[in-house]
Amino acid sequence: ADLFGDLIGEATESTHPAGGRHIIAQIDGMVRVIAAKAGLDVARIRRGALGSPGVVQPATGHILYAPNIPGFDTFDVAEALAVRLGFPVVIENDVNLAALGERRQGDRHGVGNLAFIALGTGIGMGIVANGQLLRGARGAAGEIAYLPLGGDPFDSRGFTLGTFETVIGSVAIVERCRGLGVAAPADVRGVFDLLAQGDAAAAMVIDEVARLLAQAIVAVRAVLDPEIVVLGGSIGSRQEVLEGVRRYGLRLGDRELVVESSLLGSRAALIGAIGLATDLLHHELFEPPRSAPEAGAVAG
Amino acid sequence: ADLFGDLIGEATESTHPAGGRHIIAQIDGMVRVIAAKAGLDVARIRRGALGSPGVVQPATGHILYAPNIPGFDTFDVAEALAVRLGFPVVIENDVNLAALGERRQGDRHGVGNLAFIALGTGIGMGIVANGQLLRGARGAAGEIAYLPLGGDPFDSRGFTLGTFETVIGSVAIVERCRGLGVAAPADVRGVFDLLAQGDAAAAMVIDEVARLLAQAIVAVRAVLDPEIVVLGGSIGSRQEVLEGVRRYGLRLGDRELVVESSLLGSRAALIGAIGLATDLLHHELFEPPRSAPEAGAVAG
Repeated sequence: ADLFGDLIGEATESTHPAGGRHIIAQIDGMVRVIAAKAGLDVARIRRGALGSPGVVQPATGHILYAPNIPGFDTFDVAEALAVRLGFPVVIENDVNLAALGERRQGDRHGVGNLAFIALGTGIGMGIVANGQLLRGARGAAGEIAYLPLGGDPFDSRGFTLGTFETVIGSVAIVERCRGLGVAAPADVRGVFDLLAQGDAAAAMVIDEVARLLAQAIVAVRAVLDPEIVVLGGSIGSRQEVLEGVRRYGLRLGDRELVVESSLLGSRAALIGAIGLATDLLHHELFEPPRSAPEAGAVAG
Repeated sequence: ADLFGDLIGEATESTHPAGGRHIIAQIDGMVRVIAAKAGLDVARIRRGALGSPGVVQPATGHILYAPNIPGFDTFDVAEALAVRLGFPVVIENDVNLAALGERRQGDRHGVGNLAFIALGTGIGMGIVANGQLLRGARGAAGEIAYLPLGGDPFDSRGFTLGTFETVIGSVAIVERCRGLGVAAPADVRGVFDLLAQGDAAAAMVIDEVARLLAQAIVAVRAVLDPEIVVLGGSIGSRQEVLEGVRRYGLRLGDRELVVESSLLGSRAALIGAIGLATDLLHHELFEPPRSAPEAGAVAG
């Protein structure tokens, strides 16, 4: 992106399955290809931003816990990228970046308190509070997979994934549909295909997802009092889910909260990452050093 | 208090039962009595801070909703106090002030993310996040009475008090004890008296309170990831409750969170109010104007 945050090149690849330092090499290669295509000298790139699943330590940008990327929590990823690429790289949780991205859209610029809930394979939340990203003490704020909702919170079988994720994640959705004994979808996409065909079992399952999600939103609202909750992720951004959440929200007495679908879809984290990197660069170029920067850890 | 935040005089009175502007006159009278006793000219007082139950609007300090004080949400309390007293007064939710007070104690000064849960007649929470008070969009952050826990969140009979408060507030505690059919305590103090006498029913009820509170803390942790949770209020600060919460916290898989009892007890909001007022005064006296002050609304 340029200094205005406008995209000048992009590429998409699946994360290297071997994880760890293979991803550093992969990103390095992608950056060089994108830059070459755009006619840009890599040496002129001033800053990078990496979105990663998992828990990113607020102070250092070190990835503390990355369940979906092998080895990504065993070395200083920001430092390794900076050394390889030649410019500083900030690391942020991908759902946090999506929250920043969604907050930049439409009339949400002035919103000081926003929650972005991503429901796909798993569930997570990015929080803007007092106009800043809220990361928590260990970078684990918004890990609503661990809400004690939808199942017995004392059942330790749910502790790894999180009690709430075990009842609302994509695995649970497919199993719920099969459990009704009418159809056997292969995956969540199959559940939504059945729904589109008017399948009653799929409708019940998606209704249940909305009912659970509405309860989570009530819990989030009780704690954070956000002005707006944005739903995203492959499941959360479905119109059927949004409509169900609004319906159950009313039945839960939630007459004031604004719930909207993601405006950016799968590009929310990308837009947030560009915003974060350009903000950091603007601060570096045009402002005196600050004692408490809004943005997270920067290495390099 | 002086500029160092040290107390130089105090008085305690029950809130005027007629509420509204009677309380303004009452506070004015108390301030003059305290000042006279301390040999202090009221004209030398530079700033006041008022803790109030209810929802305080972050931007203006106007009290939007004060269920326990009649008429306190019908006029600009901060402005009325400032006019009457001759110095500016900041208004803040009393549990938020208690959170600020507790954060000033012991080794908690450096804690950027802290939650203070007050359990007494009702339940509420004050939040420090990113080192600042988190008030939410409407000043209703921390209203955990509305968590969808402990009862059916779709039962609209719980909407006024809040689903969670209906199962864990002082009324619920007394009714739970009576419901076991062994003893009929008049109030919560009676329940704790029975507990001290070794009454098995009272022990079961307090155990249930701890079990519910531990679940609320897990929910709060999933959203906020605080470094420490402080328990206060007439019920929350009981040692038996703290021990139960820690025990159930472990059973909920919560091995890392630090839960401590309030260090200040009923004086937490007072200490927080002094801290807030002296902070504001220090900023006014010694710092250039800031675009985003930590403290809330100031009138006068």
